[in-house]
Amino acid sequence: MKSYLDCIPCFVRQSLQAARFVTDDAAVHEQVLRRVLRTVAEMELNDPPPAMAVHVQRLIRKLTGNDDPYRQVKDEFNRHAMEMVEELRPSVKKSSDPLETAVRLAIAGNIIDFGPASQIKRSDVDVVIRRALSASLPDGAVEQLRRAVDRAGRILYLADNAGEIAFDRLLIENLPREKITVAVKGSPIINDALLSDAEAVGLCDLVEVIDNGSDAPGTMLQTCSEDFCRRFRSADLIIAKGQANYETLSDVEVDAEIFFLLLVKCHVIAQDAGWKVGDLVVARKGLGARG
Amino acid sequence: MKSYLDCIPCFVRQSLQAARFVTDDAAVHEQVLRRVLRTVAEMELNDPPPAMAVHVQRLIRKLTGNDDPYRQVKDEFNRHAMEMVEELRPSVKKSSDPLETAVRLAIAGNIIDFGPASQIKRSDVDVVIRRALSASLPDGAVEQLRRAVDRAGRILYLADNAGEIAFDRLLIENLPREKITVAVKGSPIINDALLSDAEAVGLCDLVEVIDNGSDAPGTMLQTCSEDFCRRFRSADLIIAKGQANYETLSDVEVDAEIFFLLLVKCHVIAQDAGWKVGDLVVARKGLGARG
Repeated sequence: MKSYLDCIPCFVRQSLQAARFVTDDAAVHEQVLRRVLRTVAEMELNDPPPAMAVHVQRLIRKLTGNDDPYRQVKDEFNRHAMEMVEELRPSVKKSSDPLETAVRLAIAGNIIDFGPASQIKRSDVDVVIRRALSASLPDGAVEQLRRAVDRAGRILYLADNAGEIAFDRLLIENLPREKITVAVKGSPIINDALLSDAEAVGLCDLVEVIDNGSDAPGTMLQTCSEDFCRRFRSADLIIAKGQANYETLSDVEVDAEIFFLLLVKCHVIAQDAGWKVGDLVVARKGLGARG
Repeated sequence: MKSYLDCIPCFVRQSLQAARFVTDDAAVHEQVLRRVLRTVAEMELNDPPPAMAVHVQRLIRKLTGNDDPYRQVKDEFNRHAMEMVEELRPSVKKSSDPLETAVRLAIAGNIIDFGPASQIKRSDVDVVIRRALSASLPDGAVEQLRRAVDRAGRILYLADNAGEIAFDRLLIENLPREKITVAVKGSPIINDALLSDAEAVGLCDLVEVIDNGSDAPGTMLQTCSEDFCRRFRSADLIIAKGQANYETLSDVEVDAEIFFLLLVKCHVIAQDAGWKVGDLVVARKGLGARG
């Protein structure tokens, strides 16, 4: 997905929020904001929105000297989410369709995203979970996913955020683990999950977890390691979590089927894809896609 | 009032909205946005927010070749507001305190502001009017205004927007007209009232109306005519409508008492002045101010 003019005011707002989130130093807030304005003024709109997030977050890390400014909220939401998942696991098991319930919860977990929002409370996650359990899903989408999982040999699961990754674990518990590799980010970007977050929620004991070598949100292949790109190209099925994975992969040609699982949090992506803000998305993409 | 870092994302958003409001040409939208980003990156935060609006609106006028892009909505809201005022006049007359009711309505009319909002419907104005008739006003503020009007020899009434100016007329009908001069803008800026708008709502038949020689929102004295500045300096009482007049005059030293009458539409101004968004403001400023 390309960037839109509407993304630009949002980048500017987000960079001020992000700067404030990671430091109380008003001089740094101003420096970040002025530098971002100059960069955005020259920005190539053909790049997906995460390209700008990479720039902003690198700038903040450089100006604050803090390499992982979201570390604290990542730890906090890993803990919260693990508690929630422990409570929710019995209801997934009891559900008439455990896979569908786990898909709903994995999408609900996508609310834990410090990109579009500067503050997220545990109670916000509770509200989204309750809604997700009864909200409508695209007709037949879970069936399509179930069949794609059945016929795939190698499944690559692209994780999104810390905290959210505990809900991904719950979904993966309901998938054939032996087929699955989970990919996390190579280095800190906003509150995206790293290897340590996969470990914190016990995912590494369950499936193979690799990092993609990148510090970009989503999956910007040109910033990923060769190793990751090989795995990406050889997967039969890619399950891609979150908005940034849609933004960076919706226009990429791949042989695999891709299922995007995400919660729509932004009007621009909603308009681009024909969704509504608040929608639970299970969207299939792929040349060889079959129902 | 100085500008805040929070004003910057808002300027960027507003300039895109304003560009879209005045033309459908996406190339112009992008040109405006990129130029505004470059300018805002270097902006002096000690200037009040309207300094940026001047720049943006000049740019839009230049790039579109349209000298008064808000002319149509100004005409439309002059007509709507005149109809509303005709309906409301009897209730002002019947009111136990006609001045207070007219003050409430003049503040409600301040909703017709295409600066912070890109779309305003007639029904939005109806809602604000209903609310304004019963909303709380600062304790004793109307009494202070009444006494200031009584003791003043020369009252300068700084109008804000087209449409709104019909509600100003209703207030002025309840003030000693012989003391009053109304000032409008010298040339087009957003939907601010010009001489033609004062004429359209019949204000010129009621009181003296002058223009301030400026194309800035509010009253940036350095952009106003000498003639206007003389009138400004020689007034005993200044009634200043709208946010932009507060933003440009709150830090200016004057001998006159100033009463700011406005509807709070922005979080930044609310925080600066200790108000809340949605508040009806009657705020007095002035070294020699007495109760």
